[in-house]
Amino acid sequence: MPLEVKKLKVNYKTLEEFKRFKEYGLQELSMLEDLEANIIENDSDSPFYGIYFGNKLVARMSLYQVEARFDRYFSPPQDYLELWKLEVLPDYQGRGYGTALVDFAKSFGLPIKTNPRVKSNEFWEKQGFTSVHYDMQRDLGENPLVWESKQS
Amino acid sequence: MPLEVKKLKVNYKTLEEFKRFKEYGLQELSMLEDLEANIIENDSDSPFYGIYFGNKLVARMSLYQVEARFDRYFSPPQDYLELWKLEVLPDYQGRGYGTALVDFAKSFGLPIKTNPRVKSNEFWEKQGFTSVHYDMQRDLGENPLVWESKQS
Repeated sequence: MPLEVKKLKVNYKTLEEFKRFKEYGLQELSMLEDLEANIIENDSDSPFYGIYFGNKLVARMSLYQVEARFDRYFSPPQDYLELWKLEVLPDYQGRGYGTALVDFAKSFGLPIKTNPRVKSNEFWEKQGFTSVHYDMQRDLGENPLVWESKQS
Repeated sequence: MPLEVKKLKVNYKTLEEFKRFKEYGLQELSMLEDLEANIIENDSDSPFYGIYFGNKLVARMSLYQVEARFDRYFSPPQDYLELWKLEVLPDYQGRGYGTALVDFAKSFGLPIKTNPRVKSNEFWEKQGFTSVHYDMQRDLGENPLVWESKQS
C-alpha cells in the first residue's frame, strides 16, 4: 500500500490531532489562536504535510521554502526547503512513514536543510543527509543537516 | 553554599564531560575536531559556562552575543544574548543549578533569547521569560522565549 502524503489544512480537527505529537509548541498554539480570532480561515493551507492511517494523523512534518537571499547553507546561495517537526507517532514507527515524508520533501527538487532532534542521526544518514560544518554564529544551538539532489 | 558559575575552557577533560549531557551534538564534535587538528589551542575559551560539583561538571549552558544588526526579536534592535544547551545532569536537578546559570546570563545586562526544549516552559516562566509572537519565516521550528531586564 503506497503511503499518501497530504498537505494539511488548518482546522480544529488537525490542531487537535497535533496534540498527540511531542513537538507541539508555539507554532501550533499560534495557529490555534489565529483560527479562533478569525485571522485565518478554517481549512486554510498550513506548512504541514502528513500521513493518515484511516482517519488518524500518524506522521507529519513542516516545510517552508526559504529564498536564496536568506540562504546561509548552500553554495551558491539558492532557494531551499527548511524541514522541521518530522515526527511519527510511536505505534506507527518503523513502517516507512518518515521516509515517505522525506521522499515527498525531496520531490520538490530543492535542497533541504533540517535541524533534527538529538539521536535521530541514523535515520537522516539513511535519507542521504549530511552534517554541515558547524559555524557558531550561524548555528548556535542547531545541528544542521542538509540534502542536495544529485542532479544539481 | 553559593553556586559558582565558571567559563569553561576547551580541553579534552571538558569535552569528555560534555558527553554526559543529552544535547551533545555538532557543536561539541566540531570543538573536538578543532582541538585535535590544533585549529584551537587546549584551554581556549569556549561559549560554555558551567557549574562543578567537586570536580564534576553537573550543569552547563552556552551563551553568544548577537549584534543588534542581526536582531529580529527585540524592539528597537539591540545586542542580545542567545542562550542554548542549558542542561543540568539528572541527579543534580532541583537544586538551583539551572536558575544560577540563568541568573548569570542575566547579569550581563542584555536581553536574552532562547529556544528551549519542549516541556521546559514552567522553568522558563519562573525565570521571567515570555513567548514571542510566532513568526514562521523567522522561527520555523523554534519556540523562542525572551527576557528583557526591567531597567531597560
